[in-house]
Amino acid sequence: MIIILKPEATEAEIALVVKKIESYGLAAHISKGTERTIIGAIGDERVLQEGPLEAFPFVEEVLPILKPYKLASREFKPDGSIVNVDGVLVGGRQVVVMAGPCAVESREGLLQIAQYVKSGGGRILRGGAYKPRTSPYTFQGLGEEGLAYLAEAKRATGLPIATELMDSRDADAVYQYADLIQIGARNMQNFKLLTEVGSRRKPVLLKRGSSSTVKELLLAAEYILSEGNYDVILCERGIRTFEDATRNTLDLSAVPLIKRLSHLPVVVDPSHGTGKWHLVSPMALAAVAAGADGIMVEIHPHPEEALSDGPQALLPGTFETLMSELRGVAQAVGRSL
Amino acid sequence: MIIILKPEATEAEIALVVKKIESYGLAAHISKGTERTIIGAIGDERVLQEGPLEAFPFVEEVLPILKPYKLASREFKPDGSIVNVDGVLVGGRQVVVMAGPCAVESREGLLQIAQYVKSGGGRILRGGAYKPRTSPYTFQGLGEEGLAYLAEAKRATGLPIATELMDSRDADAVYQYADLIQIGARNMQNFKLLTEVGSRRKPVLLKRGSSSTVKELLLAAEYILSEGNYDVILCERGIRTFEDATRNTLDLSAVPLIKRLSHLPVVVDPSHGTGKWHLVSPMALAAVAAGADGIMVEIHPHPEEALSDGPQALLPGTFETLMSELRGVAQAVGRSL
Amino acid sequence: MIIILKPEATEAEIALVVKKIESYGLAAHISKGTERTIIGAIGDERVLQEGPLEAFPFVEEVLPILKPYKLASREFKPDGSIVNVDGVLVGGRQVVVMAGPCAVESREGLLQIAQYVKSGGGRILRGGAYKPRTSPYTFQGLGEEGLAYLAEAKRATGLPIATELMDSRDADAVYQYADLIQIGARNMQNFKLLTEVGSRRKPVLLKRGSSSTVKELLLAAEYILSEGNYDVILCERGIRTFEDATRNTLDLSAVPLIKRLSHLPVVVDPSHGTGKWHLVSPMALAAVAAGADGIMVEIHPHPEEALSDGPQALLPGTFETLMSELRGVAQAVGRSL
Amino acid sequence: MIIILKPEATEAEIALVVKKIESYGLAAHISKGTERTIIGAIGDERVLQEGPLEAFPFVEEVLPILKPYKLASREFKPDGSIVNVDGVLVGGRQVVVMAGPCAVESREGLLQIAQYVKSGGGRILRGGAYKPRTSPYTFQGLGEEGLAYLAEAKRATGLPIATELMDSRDADAVYQYADLIQIGARNMQNFKLLTEVGSRRKPVLLKRGSSSTVKELLLAAEYILSEGNYDVILCERGIRTFEDATRNTLDLSAVPLIKRLSHLPVVVDPSHGTGKWHLVSPMALAAVAAGADGIMVEIHPHPEEALSDGPQALLPGTFETLMSELRGVAQAVGRSL
Repeated sequence: MIIILKPEATEAEIALVVKKIESYGLAAHISKGTERTIIGAIGDERVLQEGPLEAFPFVEEVLPILKPYKLASREFKPDGSIVNVDGVLVGGRQVVVMAGPCAVESREGLLQIAQYVKSGGGRILRGGAYKPRTSPYTFQGLGEEGLAYLAEAKRATGLPIATELMDSRDADAVYQYADLIQIGARNMQNFKLLTEVGSRRKPVLLKRGSSSTVKELLLAAEYILSEGNYDVILCERGIRTFEDATRNTLDLSAVPLIKRLSHLPVVVDPSHGTGKWHLVSPMALAAVAAGADGIMVEIHPHPEEALSDGPQALLPGTFETLMSELRGVAQAVGRSL
Repeated sequence: MIIILKPEATEAEIALVVKKIESYGLAAHISKGTERTIIGAIGDERVLQEGPLEAFPFVEEVLPILKPYKLASREFKPDGSIVNVDGVLVGGRQVVVMAGPCAVESREGLLQIAQYVKSGGGRILRGGAYKPRTSPYTFQGLGEEGLAYLAEAKRATGLPIATELMDSRDADAVYQYADLIQIGARNMQNFKLLTEVGSRRKPVLLKRGSSSTVKELLLAAEYILSEGNYDVILCERGIRTFEDATRNTLDLSAVPLIKRLSHLPVVVDPSHGTGKWHLVSPMALAAVAAGADGIMVEIHPHPEEALSDGPQALLPGTFETLMSELRGVAQAVGRSL
Repeated sequence: MIIILKPEATEAEIALVVKKIESYGLAAHISKGTERTIIGAIGDERVLQEGPLEAFPFVEEVLPILKPYKLASREFKPDGSIVNVDGVLVGGRQVVVMAGPCAVESREGLLQIAQYVKSGGGRILRGGAYKPRTSPYTFQGLGEEGLAYLAEAKRATGLPIATELMDSRDADAVYQYADLIQIGARNMQNFKLLTEVGSRRKPVLLKRGSSSTVKELLLAAEYILSEGNYDVILCERGIRTFEDATRNTLDLSAVPLIKRLSHLPVVVDPSHGTGKWHLVSPMALAAVAAGADGIMVEIHPHPEEALSDGPQALLPGTFETLMSELRGVAQAVGRSL
Repeated sequence: MIIILKPEATEAEIALVVKKIESYGLAAHISKGTERTIIGAIGDERVLQEGPLEAFPFVEEVLPILKPYKLASREFKPDGSIVNVDGVLVGGRQVVVMAGPCAVESREGLLQIAQYVKSGGGRILRGGAYKPRTSPYTFQGLGEEGLAYLAEAKRATGLPIATELMDSRDADAVYQYADLIQIGARNMQNFKLLTEVGSRRKPVLLKRGSSSTVKELLLAAEYILSEGNYDVILCERGIRTFEDATRNTLDLSAVPLIKRLSHLPVVVDPSHGTGKWHLVSPMALAAVAAGADGIMVEIHPHPEEALSDGPQALLPGTFETLMSELRGVAQAVGRSL
């Protein structure tokens, strides 16, 4: 950690900072420049996060040197991790397509969509039983009934199930049926929930919050990893910007950036990332070109009747076309589908 | 709701939209312009949120006419609401100052700060027992022990207590001690938690999420109100923007905007809103000038030793000076302190 | 245009709005709903932009129905435009790679890089002679001397030249040497400059401003088109968001979105869009997968000595590798390189 | 400047960085920590901006220590600057109100508004003769005719004139009539224009770009100052964020922040900053409470007929009320009006 003092800082103030650094078991290293005095704290600076040196009025700025996460970093584990979702490997050479309805709406509807996913080449079935909705007046999901339908769809198709856990009190139910536990963007910093899924033993799909930096996403992953669960897949699904022509701005540069900073697999959700069905296929192709380990898309045979997020759902036929184009792009970047 | 069709929409497609609108019990009203056909849906358009007309490929855009929230709107209740926090009225003529440490760190520390708050003229004591922290390696709060200290500080000073509830499982403990239940910015869209505090009977301080619009804040309030709890105070505490010289960008225009759209009281938290102690006082003054019903600020006698958010804490002396300046600004805009 | 009145609007106020609409030669169409009265303005609503109806206190909201641009819209010209840059066609089946140094720094350096571009398969040489720099203390470009070097590089390689025009007073010089006139992101709304390049007869590369929406980019293009110059290529180069791990957030969804809204060709600049050399290649591949008509990248044989934007420049060898991967992705989406 | 090397950096690579630093006339200072080697560059690091060390693949990050601006910094000039606009002092104890129409629309209209400004207590008359407009199809200003009307309004009222300069080619005309040269937000990084007004001798009002940080605003000011013109007034007028209920998000925390970083006066434009007339007065009051040296507001007697920005104009009566409230707030923070 580098502590930059104000030009007018006195010797006594410099000594105060040094003393404080040493009280945390670190060594202090003073460097007097022509315009500023700078103090380096040598050792594991993470302990200093609880001693906020920038609260001293004579400190101008505090610059961390190390990343605040550790277990999630590529430095900690140079090889990429592969997460096993009930037999489907995410993070290897093969790009994994997860698809399904936004919300589970009915037994028949889900089974039909599951067949589309299977026959199109999707390898994990997604579908929400508990739905976080901006308005209290919209469909909130079928709850445990929806989970049972997902289980039935798995029996029918063999596809592992990905579904969202919104509240710790539903954890037992969700863990009974799901193979991949999804933490939604709005809960990325629900630290109690992260601790909960960290202490259990199923893979977690952690979605980036719409106003979270990549660094904060990796810190959220660190909550899960530090509880002992290393099976974490990250998911880019769009961030909030001033552009209102799309629902979110899909930040695809996060894919190669995360690959550089972390060993965890990364998938992309272009359905939520754009909010418009006609942008989903181009952005799914782009995601794989950028190096994503998988994509997650929403499908609905009658989007205009979907109880949730219809405008961003692909028709089954469009999904099929997308899958065949994805194959070509995956090959062009040395992957398979 | 206004549905704008694409120029090439056929008569059959127009009929499809009309049929769909009518199936929801609304009347359809067709208007053919020179370049577009437009269909109005007459009646309570909120029911149409579950039938996403923009998923039809021949629909260009869907424009809602009504606000998606109702109970939170000023249209629903033209007079401003006053929320009673154990005897302290928020939303009336008097501007209410809530102050205290970011986190409860120790019994003695808290009691000392509570006295500063009391003697400076603060009227509600704030302090976190459960702390949402970006990193798993930083201080996470004292939990129930912290709640007990808050209760003791209340007995000593008479100040009602505001503290954050992060997880439904802690609700019984928090409700036992707190007078004002704070929902933090990261949980503004934790809908299960909103439902929980909506179904209980203590006032709620709902903080705006750092990437949430005012409309979404009002929809989050609607979750609480629609469960029957009308004692909701809204809090502006900064939004996330590209400007990185401050921790957040405090959006003070949200204060008069919310006052226009809603009857709920609004307070401002310039400590989190700026993240820098030297910006807290000017922004607290500005908040009251803009019409805020209260402010919430963090105080610490030794900010450089604070276990959480030291860089944004005011020294007790600075707090005292601020209180005297606030008095003048409050008077200038027809309020008292 | 749809005008939504406040619930309390009187008949006299409704009549006032109707009169105003009719005074602009449009027809008014009143629709009384259960909660609001709505007035539609039938005809070319663009004339109403000068009569701001939302300034009436009894008007709640004004919703435009038509896009504010016309010549740039795909509705105006359903087929995609192809822009001819001295023989290189942008917007056709072939993806065009534009490459070169950020700034022209020296004659020898430029000639060397031009050879790399040529041999790697690049088809247009880019390089700045006039450089917009955030700080007055950094290299501001070689000016006309740089233009002369670009001309020499063109003679040596046959590659057409793309270079930035920053100020109308330099237009004669720049037009003498350049084949593609670049308008930089900071000048996207320099309307005098747009008018200048609109009234001349060379193709223009218009970069999206870092805080501009796609709609505003198309309106900026409209300035050029409405002066009679239809040879406009749009360029996505990243927008400003809260994410600070990258220089900008490259908004690739703008590519398919623009393709839908406009007939103009779109290229992507992943160098400025990310600001980090190690993100340039993945994002270039993603851009082509998303449907871009070309990419623009920066190359420097010694990035650590570059006078401008070294951290985002590709080494010549990396450029070569990228070109070969691009070929595969282009084919996978039905294009060639 | 602090250069952080990657963990795997070799001795040879360390030596390369040291050599590079020394080649710029600076001293290098190596500090080996437990996880990283860090090199400090001692001396005026601004020279290193042209040698981008982060382009070395073994460099992890480069952290500047000094602010990139100098003449604009408070460190360079600890006392606040006062700018004399034809007799009106901006930056002193007195808060200065600048008011007038968005655009000069007619001789009579302008003269009438000028009287409102004068009688209400405004001290500088603002009005645009050249208007930057997002769409080419809207009113673009009266040009030199408008300047002549402004001059006439000055003769009638004695109020100095503030008006925008959009293009260097209009500079002679604008300088003939105006007392305060306004550089609009869209031109904040039009560096040629900044150089132009820097080399002339009238005060400049520099508006913050809607996607510019405070640091970039100060760097833009530095362009003007470094040409020898020290009479610069900064203006906060809102930044672009995801919140779309307001035209921009007025960043009032920029006021105390700039006051801390720079000696230049700061005014606030709540008209453009919010885009809604009903938010203008509360935000003007808040601006003065936050420490602004002045405010700039738009007035129009018939906003619904304004040719530009009617929705954000105050009626003359509202302006009068605002002025009387401003007086109280100014006094409360130790200023006068």
